[in-house]
Amino acid sequence: MNASEALRQLGEERPLVHHLTNYVTVNLVANVTLSTGALPVMAHAVEEVEEMAATASALVINMGTLDPPWIEAMIRGGKEANRRGIPVVLDPVGAGATRFRAETPGKLLSEIDFAAICGNAGEISTLAGLDAEVRGVESIGGDARTAVVKAARRLGATVAATGATDHISDGERVLAAENGHPLMGRIVGSGCASTAVVGCFAAVGGAGPETVAAALACFGRAGEAAAEKADGPGTFEPRLLDALAGLADDPSALEGGIRIREASVG
Amino acid sequence: MNASEALRQLGEERPLVHHLTNYVTVNLVANVTLSTGALPVMAHAVEEVEEMAATASALVINMGTLDPPWIEAMIRGGKEANRRGIPVVLDPVGAGATRFRAETPGKLLSEIDFAAICGNAGEISTLAGLDAEVRGVESIGGDARTAVVKAARRLGATVAATGATDHISDGERVLAAENGHPLMGRIVGSGCASTAVVGCFAAVGGAGPETVAAALACFGRAGEAAAEKADGPGTFEPRLLDALAGLADDPSALEGGIRIREASVG
Amino acid sequence: MNASEALRQLGEERPLVHHLTNYVTVNLVANVTLSTGALPVMAHAVEEVEEMAATASALVINMGTLDPPWIEAMIRGGKEANRRGIPVVLDPVGAGATRFRAETPGKLLSEIDFAAICGNAGEISTLAGLDAEVRGVESIGGDARTAVVKAARRLGATVAATGATDHISDGERVLAAENGHPLMGRIVGSGCASTAVVGCFAAVGGAGPETVAAALACFGRAGEAAAEKADGPGTFEPRLLDALAGLADDPSALEGGIRIREASVG
Repeated sequence: MNASEALRQLGEERPLVHHLTNYVTVNLVANVTLSTGALPVMAHAVEEVEEMAATASALVINMGTLDPPWIEAMIRGGKEANRRGIPVVLDPVGAGATRFRAETPGKLLSEIDFAAICGNAGEISTLAGLDAEVRGVESIGGDARTAVVKAARRLGATVAATGATDHISDGERVLAAENGHPLMGRIVGSGCASTAVVGCFAAVGGAGPETVAAALACFGRAGEAAAEKADGPGTFEPRLLDALAGLADDPSALEGGIRIREASVG
Repeated sequence: MNASEALRQLGEERPLVHHLTNYVTVNLVANVTLSTGALPVMAHAVEEVEEMAATASALVINMGTLDPPWIEAMIRGGKEANRRGIPVVLDPVGAGATRFRAETPGKLLSEIDFAAICGNAGEISTLAGLDAEVRGVESIGGDARTAVVKAARRLGATVAATGATDHISDGERVLAAENGHPLMGRIVGSGCASTAVVGCFAAVGGAGPETVAAALACFGRAGEAAAEKADGPGTFEPRLLDALAGLADDPSALEGGIRIREASVG
Repeated sequence: MNASEALRQLGEERPLVHHLTNYVTVNLVANVTLSTGALPVMAHAVEEVEEMAATASALVINMGTLDPPWIEAMIRGGKEANRRGIPVVLDPVGAGATRFRAETPGKLLSEIDFAAICGNAGEISTLAGLDAEVRGVESIGGDARTAVVKAARRLGATVAATGATDHISDGERVLAAENGHPLMGRIVGSGCASTAVVGCFAAVGGAGPETVAAALACFGRAGEAAAEKADGPGTFEPRLLDALAGLADDPSALEGGIRIREASVG
């Protein structure tokens, strides 16, 4: 599904997108979700996580601030979403940064079928079994194109590595989404936010590589528009929400602005 | 108490307002509280929740992201506030969306005497025992005027259902507060924030229907002023805080701008 | 280390700064950290807190929203940082406001060697064993200059009391940092954010009184620049991040703008 179709359908259907996410960027994630036209909900208690996931059209699991009770909530919510055919998206924040963050993705991946997995190049390289340097929750380098193909084949999901160019693969094709702006790397949570957009698009269009690429390109396009009106990272963040909401209000504004290309498999 | 009197008294007394709230909108809630002139404090540990509640002038309990330890903190804090005659305000976020969220308000209401309860039409309808559609934490429709009267009679509190028009009732009268702007529905947490303003006003003026209506109208008035300077939901949120702080600095600016009317009981 | 040197080194080294902080202002703290050039990471689980602390260049412990599992995480992270010679900075938010907040700093101080401790005048007075009025997490008055000297001697750390003028002492000298703007007191978390900047500066320059004063003055200078473009507290916050990022991008812009003086010991 392309980006303007996805935004049109989000505006019509207003699907519920359930997030099990971190407490650092949760507000941005919620506002980004709402700006696309979807309705965000955050509910982590084991008493309700399955029931809430069952009523959602997509579930986004973000490892940003991880602890055992949250992992349990993620597994319960993810399994229930799987039972009902609701797409589940993983953001493996900081995968590999500590032993705990090296082991947890494996645990989640063994219990839950993820439709899409979105992280930075270091995180995706870690999941692909490649060497990567991950410091804290930031990634330093890595060959994203190779990593997404390997990770997609290994994990059986659409995999995206975000960066100056986002690479997306289902293990066969590789798409490169080239929208975006350097200011996106100057705010905390732009990765979490882009994964949230993938979750929203998946709620109406599934998680095939075109739809995931469309979500990332759409978010990048909003970033480009926001950068024109920002004086730095602080004013960029509210402008990003304005731009995303503006695209959701008028998806035709996206036409001509989306830059996605087929990339050769390395 | 009317809105300009409440803001004047908040600026003079700078009361402490204690919030037991969700981690999604907690920062906005804190900044809204501070912008009215009150001092926000968030403290949830059972080791201190009663002592902190005892030093506050109002306690706001928000069910947004609920789990059993938080429910225990809410009950402890609420009971201590009751013992000391400190007004307690409830925002039953997502009431009815899951079994857990259907049962928890009953548990809180059986243990704590709430002075005011503020939610959207669906949440208030649920508390009133009426049918309502609640998806996630968003409400879809419902007759707000009937719901507030029924809920107020059933629960023995001032009850407000927020929306394009806010309806407020003590079970006898119904007030309609008509300030506000559609952009308020485009940011996450405007409901939590409006309940926070009710908590601040309650700290100086109690929770009678006039004061609750004044709080909601004042917040709506700030929203109207903010919308004039916003380019979308992202820039609306900081402008909303600016506008609220501007009214707190000069409450006379409210005069003529507040639109509250007596509504007939349905 | 002076402020422009610290910012230059932060931009070159991009050190990891680990925060164990509260859920109210965590997003601001993370964005402030990133704006200085450092890389923020928040990781509290006992399964990883020591390993993450060990990879960081500074650890900032903020008591804002405290509970026993977090205290355990703080102690584990702090001890590991101590073992490795990584500077640990404490923000004793609300120290003295409740018995729990009166006892917890003592517990942390007995287990962890803090390189710097930054709070408001009331919190620092409490740690110094002086009488202070702390309401919720806000401080009302107190003689900051006396308090920082007493607290520094008692606790064996560089101590800063922030306010209109920030006072910093190692128990021998007292520095007064005079940059800042009243709007900083109108947003929630400016204290947490200033301590975060101290943590970032400590990551490259240690926590001697000059470096701590430079961090606070630098943050205050950003506040002055932000205030010129803000219409109130809401628009001030994004402008503060813009200003901080602007200084990080061009540290020479600080020259002439930093106001730190030697203050006589009271």
